[in-house]
Amino acid sequence: MNNPAALIDHTLLKPDMTEAQVLSLCEEAVEHGFASVCLPPAFVAVAVDRLYGSAVRVGSVVGFPCGYNSLRQKITETAELVALGAEEIDMVISIGNLLARRFDLVEAEIAQVVLAAEQAPVKVIIECCYLDQELKQRATELVVNAGAAYVKTSTGFAPGGATVADVALLVAVAAGRIGVKAAGGIRDLDSCQQMIVAGATRIGSSAGVKIVTQWYERQDVVG
Amino acid sequence: MNNPAALIDHTLLKPDMTEAQVLSLCEEAVEHGFASVCLPPAFVAVAVDRLYGSAVRVGSVVGFPCGYNSLRQKITETAELVALGAEEIDMVISIGNLLARRFDLVEAEIAQVVLAAEQAPVKVIIECCYLDQELKQRATELVVNAGAAYVKTSTGFAPGGATVADVALLVAVAAGRIGVKAAGGIRDLDSCQQMIVAGATRIGSSAGVKIVTQWYERQDVVG
Repeated sequence: MNNPAALIDHTLLKPDMTEAQVLSLCEEAVEHGFASVCLPPAFVAVAVDRLYGSAVRVGSVVGFPCGYNSLRQKITETAELVALGAEEIDMVISIGNLLARRFDLVEAEIAQVVLAAEQAPVKVIIECCYLDQELKQRATELVVNAGAAYVKTSTGFAPGGATVADVALLVAVAAGRIGVKAAGGIRDLDSCQQMIVAGATRIGSSAGVKIVTQWYERQDVVG
Repeated sequence: MNNPAALIDHTLLKPDMTEAQVLSLCEEAVEHGFASVCLPPAFVAVAVDRLYGSAVRVGSVVGFPCGYNSLRQKITETAELVALGAEEIDMVISIGNLLARRFDLVEAEIAQVVLAAEQAPVKVIIECCYLDQELKQRATELVVNAGAAYVKTSTGFAPGGATVADVALLVAVAAGRIGVKAAGGIRDLDSCQQMIVAGATRIGSSAGVKIVTQWYERQDVVG
């Protein structure tokens, strides 16, 4: 399997993270060729400055990690992030609205964020661990209909993260119409490769450096 | 000890909560005489409607639970909540700025949210589990200086919640200038009473009904 770096959103979303850690994350992303860095809103400006002129995209999060902010907040947060230079947006849906089967509200919410995100692709976190199989499928359809670019399994803050079965399900429903991002608990090359084999087109992980290091080690062994 | 109900913020902040649960929470708050309900932004409007005319205040959260939203987002979120009828605001500081010892930024952030909150008292969550003793003291001083009403121990989303030792420390530093709210992991009457004995003037808990039920049971036994 190819080096997965180009599929990885190099992610740091810990509440106690500092600007110094953000700068390190940006340097690692350039060094290893990750697709993007995924950071909290408060650190987008510094990352945009640091990564200017590089191939690494700056992504950030909206309504994260609980999804229960108001729609108005999600829209203004998205617009602010794009104005600051964010090029990818990972949003969390209102999980309560999905569980209450208010599908029209969920689809409208995603569509509004997609609109506010302008050219930035929106990855929509449906937080699979709270959903049954039918709702995972339904949510994926809502993401497609709302015009988002990816459906994403998990925030990494809930009791469960990405599973191979969930990724395979989302890939089957998406049927090539949108991408699928696997995130949450992907901490080594094996789990990363399992997600890619299942059809994930983007990987969110805070262990990107470890993953690509393991990949290089295996090339040495094979070579 | 008196019935603690009047000190309790009856809290529900789970990512998978629904509007039906919010309505139940409001009914329980009226029935038991809790100080307030503490709810996510997306549910403030429905709680304000439901509790209109009651003595129960509606509180909500800003920058919750990670604290790493932009200052601009925290200000607009606060203003929106107040406009919707929220009467109490629990905000999370930028923990990274505190850890990086950017104390001026932390104090300014709190002061801006206090301003945006207008008449609503602001409870400032410093997330003690990430802080050493000096930073807990320093953070409490910043909260006092910024004009907030309470310092609050924890979100309930971090690895550690309220401890008796932290509450006692915050109470000592606050020295009556502001209140102290203990939250995170307070799940029964014993832990609630320990926090009150340590000097907490407000308790955040999702187990308020259990706590007051235990209190009534003990009155029966004693009586």
